[in-house]
Amino acid sequence: MAYINDNYLKLKAGYLFPEIARRVRVFADENPKAAGNIIRCGIGDVTEPLPQAAIDAMKAATDELADRGSFRGYGPEQGYDFLRGAIAQNDYRDRGLDVHDDEIFVSDGSKCDCANILDIFGNNNTIAVSDPVYPVYVDTNVMAGHTGPADGNGAYEGLVYLPCTRENGFVAAPPAVPVDLIYLCFPNNPTGAVATRQQLVEWVEYARRHDAIIFFDAAYGDYIQDPELPRSIYEIPGARECAIEFRSFSKNGGFTGVRCAYTVVPKTLMGKTAGGEATPLHPLWLRRSTTKFNGVSYPVQRAAEALYSEQGKAQVAWLISHYMGNAGILREAAKEAGLEVYGGEHAPYIWIAAPQGLSSWDVFDKMLGEANVVITPGSGFGSKGEGFFRVSAFNSRDNVIEVAKRIKAVAW
Amino acid sequence: MAYINDNYLKLKAGYLFPEIARRVRVFADENPKAAGNIIRCGIGDVTEPLPQAAIDAMKAATDELADRGSFRGYGPEQGYDFLRGAIAQNDYRDRGLDVHDDEIFVSDGSKCDCANILDIFGNNNTIAVSDPVYPVYVDTNVMAGHTGPADGNGAYEGLVYLPCTRENGFVAAPPAVPVDLIYLCFPNNPTGAVATRQQLVEWVEYARRHDAIIFFDAAYGDYIQDPELPRSIYEIPGARECAIEFRSFSKNGGFTGVRCAYTVVPKTLMGKTAGGEATPLHPLWLRRSTTKFNGVSYPVQRAAEALYSEQGKAQVAWLISHYMGNAGILREAAKEAGLEVYGGEHAPYIWIAAPQGLSSWDVFDKMLGEANVVITPGSGFGSKGEGFFRVSAFNSRDNVIEVAKRIKAVAW
Repeated sequence: MAYINDNYLKLKAGYLFPEIARRVRVFADENPKAAGNIIRCGIGDVTEPLPQAAIDAMKAATDELADRGSFRGYGPEQGYDFLRGAIAQNDYRDRGLDVHDDEIFVSDGSKCDCANILDIFGNNNTIAVSDPVYPVYVDTNVMAGHTGPADGNGAYEGLVYLPCTRENGFVAAPPAVPVDLIYLCFPNNPTGAVATRQQLVEWVEYARRHDAIIFFDAAYGDYIQDPELPRSIYEIPGARECAIEFRSFSKNGGFTGVRCAYTVVPKTLMGKTAGGEATPLHPLWLRRSTTKFNGVSYPVQRAAEALYSEQGKAQVAWLISHYMGNAGILREAAKEAGLEVYGGEHAPYIWIAAPQGLSSWDVFDKMLGEANVVITPGSGFGSKGEGFFRVSAFNSRDNVIEVAKRIKAVAW
Repeated sequence: MAYINDNYLKLKAGYLFPEIARRVRVFADENPKAAGNIIRCGIGDVTEPLPQAAIDAMKAATDELADRGSFRGYGPEQGYDFLRGAIAQNDYRDRGLDVHDDEIFVSDGSKCDCANILDIFGNNNTIAVSDPVYPVYVDTNVMAGHTGPADGNGAYEGLVYLPCTRENGFVAAPPAVPVDLIYLCFPNNPTGAVATRQQLVEWVEYARRHDAIIFFDAAYGDYIQDPELPRSIYEIPGARECAIEFRSFSKNGGFTGVRCAYTVVPKTLMGKTAGGEATPLHPLWLRRSTTKFNGVSYPVQRAAEALYSEQGKAQVAWLISHYMGNAGILREAAKEAGLEVYGGEHAPYIWIAAPQGLSSWDVFDKMLGEANVVITPGSGFGSKGEGFFRVSAFNSRDNVIEVAKRIKAVAW
């Protein structure tokens, strides 16, 4: 008899976004006139066209596959050298950071990478996540059997939750207890908070003191406007000894439907065997990648490479300034409406406190009902997200101007 | 201190293909004149251009992403309806097989799927693999902790190996002992053997008797020439109650570098919880897909869809007849050389017995040294592969004609 992985049964039934979709559907059915009026600021998905440099490169690479002489079959699982080199040079070495080409592993998404990285770690690690948190970090640990059941608030037994609150500016300090694996995400989804250099120094020092590994999710790194704020964990001395970094072309190059991301695993990173022996992580991730993955589509890798061309960089910069312009408009509108506003300065997400007496889902229903705007309830990201909601800046300028108007018109 | 997954340390150091690459490099360095003469019939990678229908569709879909009105971001993780529908209709319902659109899960490769499927199963299943075997089935179980260490022959403790030999025509019968998960691959990589309908009936009956699940890898299904031979496990009554099927566009559409495949998980499939309760597998795989994956690149899904157009089907048929023509030429040449030849009739692989006294690697060195042809040593696929070698038919016709000549010229 084939046994299932019982850990899946511990997962809370509703992933956040299906429940949002359900409520929108019900509202649209009951309010057919308003249905056509709905503007979605919920899911963090890009809306603007792909940079022309990426379009051109992808089509040229596709044409290469139409000809026997330039046809390419299986590529290296960890990515083509042309892309690994472009990434390491542009995102790291040009910024003075010591990252080698063969420490870059090209993948089809940061969500996949954040999930798959657990494969190379044991089941006996203590794991810390922030609260609120990107749900994938938690759910993949539940699936891997690293937790007990969830409590009434949706918090899983065995995980160390780090509260991110008004009081700490939504950036948790290292915990008093030792942990082994730590998920950090800056700029943060959902709060839009960014850690300062000093805050990351404390994390790196903590990790080195405890021989812990930091999973640093920098999928929104290019949204940072202040050059003093660290975009990469490797800006912090010692991070090559304690951190894996995840980055993506989804939110800078608009690749959410095209699929390309990468993970940095420094060759200087060590883990420990059950017998207590230090062992390098890079060969384990390489083995994982070559055995369980077959590389990213060749035309997609060419498209990602093109984002580093002069034209590509300008087009990415335009996209980011477009979405950050949106974020600024939404921030101002929410403030004018008298709301308590966070994030949106170095991130495409604005994190807003629900007015007194309203829960996150109350605000969701209110925004949908009164403004016909879909937001994301903060409680969907964890118990400390209760009393907040996330507004995404991924939209057209026209829609954002309209949403700004509607936020101000709501009877808060 | 971060603990690693110690199971990775049980993996035998050399994956087969790196060792082949190393020997070819050494030979080329020592024989610079012969180096330019080498023809590779080793790795099973396609060589011919992508079908024009796929090229056109991929470029058109890329252009859609260049325009705000037709831009698409995140797609459904399990694949777009247009592709799931085309697959279920063409590969199943048009052949009289009962498979629903939402039982199709589009992915970026069968290698990934065969590996990832283990996520939804428990760690307490008894697992059967053939010998010889596609190494990914074994290695991913080792990584997941489903085995003990390897013995001197490279066989892992805890797996049930099913010998595939001359005597059984390289198709194993169900074992006498009960097992829970069974990997079957037909047409087979590496032997090129195909199971008859009656043989699969025995497997399905066995699986149903033991409530076991069959992982049916049909990546080479379209190479079957005889309409009496089953291309899909779902041609066998009862298979919807006991089988998951993996298929790929890599070897029919030439998508090895483009990346698209799919997995069929019937909603009628059940597994058992640790408590002994029957539970459906479809929701588990859906949850796995939505949480740990973000879907296949949109232009790639459009390219895969185009393989089902009239033009696409004709181009796929041409590719298959090209490679099968190659297989016929190689089979005949090896026979004329006095070798004992299997496979290559419904598969792009020819499985040849090493002449008396030679090991698989002896033949590898002999073919490289005397014929400057790279083959794959059978022992790389398991202990029962010793004394055989695999010749891949994925090549240009000119190369194949040359290889045929050289095989006959070797002093066997």
